[in-house]
Amino acid sequence: MLSDIIKNLLAEVAGIQNIPTAGAFNIRNNGKSAGRNSTDTIQIIPKEDGSGIDIIVKPGTKNESVHIPALVTETDLHDVVYNDFHIGEGADVTIVAGCGIHNCGSGISQHDGIHRFFVGKNAKMKYIEKHIGEGDGDGQNIINPQTHIIAEENSYVEMDTVQLKGVDSTKRISSAKLAEGATVVIKEKIMTHGSQYAETSFDVDLDGAGSSAKLISRSVARDNSRQLFRSKLSGNNACYGHSECDAIIMDQGIVAAEPEIIANNVDASLIHEAAIGKIAGEQLTKLMTLGLTEKEAEAQIINGFLK
Amino acid sequence: MLSDIIKNLLAEVAGIQNIPTAGAFNIRNNGKSAGRNSTDTIQIIPKEDGSGIDIIVKPGTKNESVHIPALVTETDLHDVVYNDFHIGEGADVTIVAGCGIHNCGSGISQHDGIHRFFVGKNAKMKYIEKHIGEGDGDGQNIINPQTHIIAEENSYVEMDTVQLKGVDSTKRISSAKLAEGATVVIKEKIMTHGSQYAETSFDVDLDGAGSSAKLISRSVARDNSRQLFRSKLSGNNACYGHSECDAIIMDQGIVAAEPEIIANNVDASLIHEAAIGKIAGEQLTKLMTLGLTEKEAEAQIINGFLK
Repeated sequence: MLSDIIKNLLAEVAGIQNIPTAGAFNIRNNGKSAGRNSTDTIQIIPKEDGSGIDIIVKPGTKNESVHIPALVTETDLHDVVYNDFHIGEGADVTIVAGCGIHNCGSGISQHDGIHRFFVGKNAKMKYIEKHIGEGDGDGQNIINPQTHIIAEENSYVEMDTVQLKGVDSTKRISSAKLAEGATVVIKEKIMTHGSQYAETSFDVDLDGAGSSAKLISRSVARDNSRQLFRSKLSGNNACYGHSECDAIIMDQGIVAAEPEIIANNVDASLIHEAAIGKIAGEQLTKLMTLGLTEKEAEAQIINGFLK
Repeated sequence: MLSDIIKNLLAEVAGIQNIPTAGAFNIRNNGKSAGRNSTDTIQIIPKEDGSGIDIIVKPGTKNESVHIPALVTETDLHDVVYNDFHIGEGADVTIVAGCGIHNCGSGISQHDGIHRFFVGKNAKMKYIEKHIGEGDGDGQNIINPQTHIIAEENSYVEMDTVQLKGVDSTKRISSAKLAEGATVVIKEKIMTHGSQYAETSFDVDLDGAGSSAKLISRSVARDNSRQLFRSKLSGNNACYGHSECDAIIMDQGIVAAEPEIIANNVDASLIHEAAIGKIAGEQLTKLMTLGLTEKEAEAQIINGFLK
């Protein structure tokens, strides 16, 4: 039987209310498995050294999903896990990861999930990662995810990552290596408040002819929070790369963007755009003339921006 | 009497054919002065330690110009010069610097000009810097300019820098610190060919309320040449900063862009755009249907891009 705290976290990060009764899943709680299931086409196998799991998706598997949420509900706990995903040729799957921390103590609750994805030829994978922190203690919630993608010929990878509240510090490191015709689309949404810190780093190698990558980052920094966005797009073949980073700053929020584009091949086409600023005065005024207070108008604009 | 080589270099980098007969100027050749003139409003004074000159523009000086070209015509010569420009309050002047190297030997001909600009309140300065290398030896032409600008309240600075041929290696370091209401516009145009290397670095601190900076870089990398563009815009007050970097790559040319924008103040508005790619096929086709050869069409597009 799961506690209400765990049920709430599961709903928030993985969209599930309880231990599922079907489908492939692995629920990790405070560093231990709280439920696991494999299916005919998706095997979840604990690594022999106990460091994490291997998720093996059979070639040709279609329209299936895997849920692998990780929860931390104890204070003074540092959970580190190494998970490897092997997506067979021609498969089409959705993976729902994500981490929820509920820390009512005064220590540090930390989860570091190091995920590697080996996406086979012509395979399609959607990877959803949601991070959330809560708890009324004065402890720190820290989530440091790493996502490393090897995208084989003509594969398609979409990664959606969201962190909207309660994570005091995060360093998010992502990399992707793209073979011929492979496409990677990464979307991240981050909101920081209080004195939180968020750092994002993308490193994409466009190695194959016809490969393409799109990075889209939208973030809001409120109160005294700070954010750093880094990206590196290396065009090593005939390829297309586009990176965009839009940030809204409020209160005393601070945001820095350090994108990098490198064309190592004459047929590489690379674009980067970044913009940092506060909400435009006219936008607020327009909504306030419709009867909203300034706070309501701000909230509506930010909701739209992070939608 | 100036040699034809020197006359040609002067015409190329400073738009003058000979030692001027009027106006403020300082002509440096192979590390020594080849002519100098001050006027009532613009004093050119050699530094006591012999390391360079001080250029002092009286407050209120209007529509005057200073020419300070530096030439290197010997091989195995490394010329280093420190020049300081003091632009008085409310002045409006044009400064034409630039460096020409003619190296017919097999050694290195190098010029490092380190320029500091102290631009007074309400002053307006246009700074033009053109770099060129020539010579039929197999020696190296190296030009490493540094430009450091302190822009006081409500001053306006425009810097135009051009390097289109003959410079084997260049590291261009520029910085600007802007007080309240100050504006700095920096435009650079670079073309590299052969196995040349060009590196550009801008570091702009938008310290004052209402300050604004615009950086515009356009470059073409041909043959096996390499370029690196770096910029850092720090918004430390209510300010506006915009940086854009467009590069055309041809042959085996390689270009990397590493821009950085940092909003340290909620009223800072910062934007960066970068694009690297080859000339679009349709553009070439369009011009070729008008009767141009592929080479002619390329040349026309590049001329337009760098105009």
